[in-house]
Amino acid sequence: MSHIHQLGERRVIEIIMDHLDEMPEMPIPFWDDVSAVDLGGGRLAILKTDMLVWSTDIPPGMTHYQAGRKAMVMNISDLAAKGVRPMAVLVSLGLPRDLQGEEVAEIARGMNDGAREYGAYVLGGDTNEAGEIIISGMAFGIAEEGKIMRRDGARPGDILATTGVFGKTAAGLKILLEGLEAPADLRSSLVEAVFMPKARVEEGVALAESGVVTASMDSSDGLALSLYDLSRSSGVGFRVDRLPAAPEARRFAELHGLKLSDLVLYGGEEYELVFTVKPEGVEEARRVLRRVGGELIVIGEVTEEKEILYRVNGELRPIRPGGWEHFKGGA
Amino acid sequence: MSHIHQLGERRVIEIIMDHLDEMPEMPIPFWDDVSAVDLGGGRLAILKTDMLVWSTDIPPGMTHYQAGRKAMVMNISDLAAKGVRPMAVLVSLGLPRDLQGEEVAEIARGMNDGAREYGAYVLGGDTNEAGEIIISGMAFGIAEEGKIMRRDGARPGDILATTGVFGKTAAGLKILLEGLEAPADLRSSLVEAVFMPKARVEEGVALAESGVVTASMDSSDGLALSLYDLSRSSGVGFRVDRLPAAPEARRFAELHGLKLSDLVLYGGEEYELVFTVKPEGVEEARRVLRRVGGELIVIGEVTEEKEILYRVNGELRPIRPGGWEHFKGGA
Repeated sequence: MSHIHQLGERRVIEIIMDHLDEMPEMPIPFWDDVSAVDLGGGRLAILKTDMLVWSTDIPPGMTHYQAGRKAMVMNISDLAAKGVRPMAVLVSLGLPRDLQGEEVAEIARGMNDGAREYGAYVLGGDTNEAGEIIISGMAFGIAEEGKIMRRDGARPGDILATTGVFGKTAAGLKILLEGLEAPADLRSSLVEAVFMPKARVEEGVALAESGVVTASMDSSDGLALSLYDLSRSSGVGFRVDRLPAAPEARRFAELHGLKLSDLVLYGGEEYELVFTVKPEGVEEARRVLRRVGGELIVIGEVTEEKEILYRVNGELRPIRPGGWEHFKGGA
Repeated sequence: MSHIHQLGERRVIEIIMDHLDEMPEMPIPFWDDVSAVDLGGGRLAILKTDMLVWSTDIPPGMTHYQAGRKAMVMNISDLAAKGVRPMAVLVSLGLPRDLQGEEVAEIARGMNDGAREYGAYVLGGDTNEAGEIIISGMAFGIAEEGKIMRRDGARPGDILATTGVFGKTAAGLKILLEGLEAPADLRSSLVEAVFMPKARVEEGVALAESGVVTASMDSSDGLALSLYDLSRSSGVGFRVDRLPAAPEARRFAELHGLKLSDLVLYGGEEYELVFTVKPEGVEEARRVLRRVGGELIVIGEVTEEKEILYRVNGELRPIRPGGWEHFKGGA
């Protein structure tokens, strides 16, 4: 075998799964955003864990408060994508010995706000000594068995949609990591997208309640990888007719001569929901999203052929499977 | 404020808790081994997360398999101490880029065995890039509300007991970290205690079912700190009449002129249960433990005065609050 940076995150996950016994009658398969345990009576316990690592996940300028908050948001986002409201969060902290007490307090304040913003509470956790700051969160919620939105239900002819536009975090990271410049108002909007991400909890719950969604996941690894993940789980392909580009990303791309489609497709660290809807359910999905202050953006269609294509100047081009993958780095 | 190595783990936890909103009607208070969410119908979801950090938690000679297994055992042990059977485990992994695929496979095999040994399944998780190996586990189980053994129910006159003897891991760590020597049979038994710890799941479940236990926790930070934690939560003190010393620890202490009480009290990384029983329930507790192949060792009594004392040569001496505390290092 090889070093894991040669293998990439998805191959590493396959190696791990090869060594795990599968729970009989698992309510949600491996490779979905969350795990589930049957509680009986048609209810599922929904569990998710994800880790924030200071050296690889925290761009320059992000505060301890923002890191603590984001570690909660990224776990809560996976529940949101399934239509599950988070009830509780636990946190395992790795902290270096020379951290200041104030910095710990700021991380804790961020954790609390990140949970409370979505109605959840930080219930407990553990502290450990580590070489750098590690914030490993876990989120818990309860779902009705039939209502949960999995990754594997998309069918040809379904409409492909998102809860928002993309590209701001990719642009914001170019400012923070590569030193690209932007006018003050644009800069602050792009950087804010990186520092203060939002989970789509109300949107996810509303979509799950509507019953018209066939598959859903969050876009934390980028729009392109989300489409590949949905494609693999559902055994379908996608034709993207319209890239959901944020106006700020467009402005930033023009300013620096960047390809807008790169910012929109291969960014990551965005927490919009990417989902598919039965064609006859699109108006209902749009209605329930509006009711919670959200929006539905139709971006394309589910196809039988397992390719992932997008239409640009009337021509269909493949979307490559790039985006954020740990160990290998970005696209 | 100060660097956290000056504050110590317990003060760091207090700082964190000062910034957390408390969930109304939390079924189990902060400062217990696990967290809980009310599922309705008298049932609780029990959650625990704890992290294993390669540089601070893994002694020389421990394999990737053993590390993966231990990360599960230490989370499962906290459920065991509450009398809760683990159903599912999730894992967030931090992995350095230059790790080998085989090493990842060994960690996964260890995780699977650590969960399956106690009837649980590894349901999912996440992988991340980090500077060193981090295995952040979380364990999930379901409990009946009235049956869970908390830390805060010990009352003066109750009997203090453990599910086993202590001192082997402290001796094993002296071999692994300080290079102390021991005859082959002794060495292998002491080192095995460090590398392949066992959680007391059957013992915990049996004790919870018996209904005679008033407080319980696991001894992962050492026997002394466990007594201090139980003392604080229950508002009582303890008189230890008999140190539960492992024969192997005694032999090792004699060999090197070490104080046996140090090995027994201030070790840590042991996963015995430390618990209190109503006096009239001791025989019942002993009986249920025997039925699952365990044993009950009476070591003392709960006292009204909040001191923690032990009897040595007919004289009562204070047990100091030492043991494993992160950031500060050992006792």
